[in-house]
Amino acid sequence: MNDMVREIREQPDWIERALELEQSSVQALVRAMSDRDIKHVIIAARGTSDNAATYAKYLFEIVAGIPVALAAPSVYTLYDATPAAPGTLVMGISQSGQGTDVVHVLAAARKAGALTACITNSRDSAITRVSEHTLLCRAGDEKAVAATKTYTTSLAVVALLVASLTRNVELQEGLAKIPQAMRSALDLEEYLHGAVERYRYMEECAVLARGINQATALETALKLTETCYILAKPYSGADFLHGPIAMVDAGFPCILFAPEGKAFASQVDLAHKLTERGAELIVIAASSDALEAATTRVQIPITGIPELLSPLPFIVPGQLLAYHLSRTRGNNPDAPRGLNKVTLTR
Amino acid sequence: MNDMVREIREQPDWIERALELEQSSVQALVRAMSDRDIKHVIIAARGTSDNAATYAKYLFEIVAGIPVALAAPSVYTLYDATPAAPGTLVMGISQSGQGTDVVHVLAAARKAGALTACITNSRDSAITRVSEHTLLCRAGDEKAVAATKTYTTSLAVVALLVASLTRNVELQEGLAKIPQAMRSALDLEEYLHGAVERYRYMEECAVLARGINQATALETALKLTETCYILAKPYSGADFLHGPIAMVDAGFPCILFAPEGKAFASQVDLAHKLTERGAELIVIAASSDALEAATTRVQIPITGIPELLSPLPFIVPGQLLAYHLSRTRGNNPDAPRGLNKVTLTR
Repeated sequence: MNDMVREIREQPDWIERALELEQSSVQALVRAMSDRDIKHVIIAARGTSDNAATYAKYLFEIVAGIPVALAAPSVYTLYDATPAAPGTLVMGISQSGQGTDVVHVLAAARKAGALTACITNSRDSAITRVSEHTLLCRAGDEKAVAATKTYTTSLAVVALLVASLTRNVELQEGLAKIPQAMRSALDLEEYLHGAVERYRYMEECAVLARGINQATALETALKLTETCYILAKPYSGADFLHGPIAMVDAGFPCILFAPEGKAFASQVDLAHKLTERGAELIVIAASSDALEAATTRVQIPITGIPELLSPLPFIVPGQLLAYHLSRTRGNNPDAPRGLNKVTLTR
Repeated sequence: MNDMVREIREQPDWIERALELEQSSVQALVRAMSDRDIKHVIIAARGTSDNAATYAKYLFEIVAGIPVALAAPSVYTLYDATPAAPGTLVMGISQSGQGTDVVHVLAAARKAGALTACITNSRDSAITRVSEHTLLCRAGDEKAVAATKTYTTSLAVVALLVASLTRNVELQEGLAKIPQAMRSALDLEEYLHGAVERYRYMEECAVLARGINQATALETALKLTETCYILAKPYSGADFLHGPIAMVDAGFPCILFAPEGKAFASQVDLAHKLTERGAELIVIAASSDALEAATTRVQIPITGIPELLSPLPFIVPGQLLAYHLSRTRGNNPDAPRGLNKVTLTR
């Protein structure tokens, strides 16, 4: 079987495992954050891990009220600056644990007195050696170049961390329901396998989400670009109205995420605006209300999942769309042209 | 004459004016930052102003060593969180001064005890009323929907602020040379007018920069999307190697910025990698070394401009490319379909 689709399907099991086994490492980091009076967070990551970092930014800011800056690694690597000080947690996310620039950021920050931690799928790697705290994805070996299970296990570990830090019962209880919600999303695979036919010759698309699912738009667009060689561009629904909507004319493909919650109403509004312009609309939602305007309706049959955890089940249709579209186009999603599993940047 | 091109050409004059007239407001903000012991910055902005915010992030972090978080406005507006506290400067950037979500972020942050400031082209507006400090673009009325002179004057004001805050002589002296460097870039207009013919039917492209010119890639891509309805996607040269390079095959158009400085070598490497894949390469650079690999060579005849100020002259060819390509395609760059000058988002 193809590695990518096998790894997509495995995700709920690895997440259950990570949630169980990472409890004590998470508690240790929570204690260190309290002891060292952490008031700010900086996260360094590249590629898919950077999308997990975006999720972490929203979750820390919304639930813990702690501002999060996403590091521009070149500030540290090219310009030799270290804008990180005691009182700051600097967290690196890297599935391979080998991202040289992310490791550089952590080393510089630790030297400057910041608390350092990493989220990685690689227990003994450059990133774990340079970090004071390690949280593991525990996702087994990831073989496909296009990362899927290391993305969702990173999200789960981030959610576990923020839930523990804030003793947020809704998040803690919600997390326990996530593997089952992801299984429900995986049940859409047969439907999506058929639905991608229509997009065989698609050359570009916009991917739209708002609020906490910004990460879902970023990650869906990245998977489409990596595996289908499509120029898929992610936008916040709000930013999209500030200019880019100009490019939408009849037939322009838009993938729109509309899980229930605080971002729902504005996403439904946006769906109607896009329909007025004749866009080709793929909507991914749980509620039927959001799906009316769509040409392709992807309904995830879940209820009772907190919006702040919805990026976990909602990325699944994005991953499956990318995988099946890649196959339909005659590509090999396991081996995108010109990519390696570990990218070294200076 | 078309508003957009007139406003592009006016930029050096308005920048001279802003640098002269905003000295005292900048000094007042610098004093407040010292009095209130500012150790962190959060910037809220949308659209073009968000690209100016990216420039500000790099400049604050590299020169002042102060970490900067770009606000996700929905954290404040949709989720009612305020991850900003005393000791933080929260800065809003909005040319119209009316961006409702940016104003909301500033109001919430001020209530929470943060120091607040704004950069705007609108002297008496919602954003100036909610901010303790106002820095003006002084760019005159901006008529074109696609913002150009409010972008570059915002960059100039940001640079003036960071130069004053850090008493950085290189930046201060460099700023004085910027209007002339931008005039040299404007001299490329006739060449660019002819060069865009080749791209009449381009449907998509990648825009690549690294380090401080990340903002230049973001803003060039936004102008192309707004005025030409092209899916132009900006990337950090480093991130591009982490996946998206997979979509580049023979003829795929890439616009690559390679000003001299610390990001230069890796951008030249990237240009060669793209050439190996047969990409259609537009390179914008001052040095001939960077232009060898390109099909379309845009050489800005400037020397002695610090890399950290290069985003000011380097955005000019990006703006001119978008303007002339839009005209060549038969569009009206002054009135992009479906856009208004002020975008209201809830």
